[in-house]
Amino acid sequence: MTSVFIEQARGAREASLGLATATRAVKDKALHSMADSLMAHVQQILEANGRDVQRSREAGVASALIDRLSLDPSRVEGMAQGLRDLSGLPDPVGEVLHGWNLENGVHINKVRVPIGVVGIIYEARPNVTADAAGICLKSGNAALLRGSSSALDSNRAVIAALQHGLEAVGLDPRIVNLVEGGHDITDEMMKARGLVDVLIPRGGASLIDAVVRGSQVPVIETGAGNCHLFVDASADQDMAVDIIINAKTQRPSVCNALETLVIDASIARDFLPRMVDTFTELGVGVQGDSRAQALDARIGETPYDGWDEEFLSLDIRVAIVDDLDEAIGFIRSHSSGHSETIITNDVGNQNRFAAEVDAACVLVNASSRFVDGGMFGFGAEIGIATQKLHARGPMALPEMTTTKYVITGNGQIR
Amino acid sequence: MTSVFIEQARGAREASLGLATATRAVKDKALHSMADSLMAHVQQILEANGRDVQRSREAGVASALIDRLSLDPSRVEGMAQGLRDLSGLPDPVGEVLHGWNLENGVHINKVRVPIGVVGIIYEARPNVTADAAGICLKSGNAALLRGSSSALDSNRAVIAALQHGLEAVGLDPRIVNLVEGGHDITDEMMKARGLVDVLIPRGGASLIDAVVRGSQVPVIETGAGNCHLFVDASADQDMAVDIIINAKTQRPSVCNALETLVIDASIARDFLPRMVDTFTELGVGVQGDSRAQALDARIGETPYDGWDEEFLSLDIRVAIVDDLDEAIGFIRSHSSGHSETIITNDVGNQNRFAAEVDAACVLVNASSRFVDGGMFGFGAEIGIATQKLHARGPMALPEMTTTKYVITGNGQIR
Repeated sequence: MTSVFIEQARGAREASLGLATATRAVKDKALHSMADSLMAHVQQILEANGRDVQRSREAGVASALIDRLSLDPSRVEGMAQGLRDLSGLPDPVGEVLHGWNLENGVHINKVRVPIGVVGIIYEARPNVTADAAGICLKSGNAALLRGSSSALDSNRAVIAALQHGLEAVGLDPRIVNLVEGGHDITDEMMKARGLVDVLIPRGGASLIDAVVRGSQVPVIETGAGNCHLFVDASADQDMAVDIIINAKTQRPSVCNALETLVIDASIARDFLPRMVDTFTELGVGVQGDSRAQALDARIGETPYDGWDEEFLSLDIRVAIVDDLDEAIGFIRSHSSGHSETIITNDVGNQNRFAAEVDAACVLVNASSRFVDGGMFGFGAEIGIATQKLHARGPMALPEMTTTKYVITGNGQIR
Repeated sequence: MTSVFIEQARGAREASLGLATATRAVKDKALHSMADSLMAHVQQILEANGRDVQRSREAGVASALIDRLSLDPSRVEGMAQGLRDLSGLPDPVGEVLHGWNLENGVHINKVRVPIGVVGIIYEARPNVTADAAGICLKSGNAALLRGSSSALDSNRAVIAALQHGLEAVGLDPRIVNLVEGGHDITDEMMKARGLVDVLIPRGGASLIDAVVRGSQVPVIETGAGNCHLFVDASADQDMAVDIIINAKTQRPSVCNALETLVIDASIARDFLPRMVDTFTELGVGVQGDSRAQALDARIGETPYDGWDEEFLSLDIRVAIVDDLDEAIGFIRSHSSGHSETIITNDVGNQNRFAAEVDAACVLVNASSRFVDGGMFGFGAEIGIATQKLHARGPMALPEMTTTKYVITGNGQIR
């Protein structure tokens, strides 16, 4: 017996074959058509979203989560605009990364091609549905979108609108699919080797961990950001304060926000109380290790196992270290491999930090809030990859492709 | 209690940290020292190998496998030469793939860096031990080498010599490690997330499948090559014969050898018997589908489930199809995604085949035997990757690295 999911994945595979060779013009037309269809179905989408929001309210879900779930006309317009913006980006498919001739005249081209069928497992933000569908389409991939049950009605309405937009330009609606069902369906996705080419979990650390451990399909990890900033003894301390405040407070709920401050002991006696003054003014809660607590009585204790977690709130931890070596060792022990920062005026320390800290992004004298596909100039991103294979850092359209060697000759043999 | 393997993996991780920032000069000196040490220990290596070979003979192992296991002075010299050759290749580490400025003056460099700790699980060829150790070292990675029990004595002697070579130039011998023990150790490797960054199985389809299904560590699949060649109606038939014979017979035991011939029905009546004449002369056994059998009585029947397997011997299967569409569909059903070939003089068919066949390498009018790191001019390869993420096709030194974004500013905030 073939499950509903397997049928759906096979349909996505079939649709992906046609999409893989679609021209940029066809894909861009589809993106505009999908955007138009979202706008034509605003009423249905908002009504469906209203049902999701009401269910969550009745279930007593926290208001921050309800905010992430809620749509309004301007958020739907934002989803449509996101699709239109994708049409302005270059098509990654067909790019020749490298081309050369062998001595015998055989020519080799290394060419970007779509991955095929991309599965995305994400939490309750219905705008991710349109966003992920658009990025997959532009990069030539069919999408199996596994949203959360709390956004089910919204996601159904959004996907129906997107599929309508695809059909309006003569494309296969199975390019974009909503995967519905219980946890057993997530298990099926994770076992669907050969049907699903890659799984991308987007959400909290526990979701990512469950997919990474359970999946037989290759996984790209995104999003967990336990980001550190080290204030070196040589740092410009005014610059350090500005960057710390920006990285911590500009948008604390995101993965590139600062979670842990590491300070060289030789400057901590002056710098830390000054920093805590500013944190206190801005309502940032401060925890720390025993050395930090000894320097400022306003600092609470970080639990033993607290150093590996993201606050994603207006809270920060402080650790005091004796030197750069200890700072690098501390960051190695606790980093999630997302974005790590040093504030320094010492060239040697800058170079050692950049070389020895193992993370997708290493920043010198700049805010980790710049680690973002939009900020990098990539135009769109599916997430920030924190693992080492295939893609690392902001994942944009090129990272949603694989490559193929096309080898042409006129009869050469070995 | 910490297992022997976990201790070993932690040691490799520590060693990898120093190696990651080693200069090319240091790494090249180490490669020469490892090569010298192999030559200084030829006697010990050959004695150890003799014990492995004797055990396998007593166990009644097939002679082809014993040949793969056996070393002699010239094979050890070949291993040493392989290490010396690696020193002539550019260092992939530090290469800037892309560098740009943001509007606010922040500069971003995307830089190649080592992956960290690479686990390689392979079958009974002791020369892979030196080969893999050298490729990992040159790309800045520590290696956990899991050879097969039948080559245990040989691998111990080779690794001891390599470690001696590392120590002779002041490097940490834990850069190269032999992982010993039963199947439970392979399981430990596959669960060692965070300690091992990637697992690369090298060997038969069942080994690769077991690692892919069982591993929580990211895996790069290599090696399984069920390669097809389609003779289009427009093909130059003399060229087709030459390429088919080369791809099938030049070295039938390797992954880029031809396994299945697909022929357009409109030319099969003349072309197939001619091809079978040549196969018969060369001692190539021929199987096929019912249409092929109907055209030539010398063709045996391919078992129902035989079309997905590699012969790796002087045997070939033949399928007859009505047109390019059916050929592409047939290849999609049975390909292992390694190397697929078309022989054609039709530009449209060439382009469709190259675009629509989903494989690491697609060849037009050339032998699939060219799909090889050495032939491609890469100088060394760890294997041919047949999956779509991170690396696809011949995996050379650059594919043994990941990237890091290094972001430098002078106080920029968002």
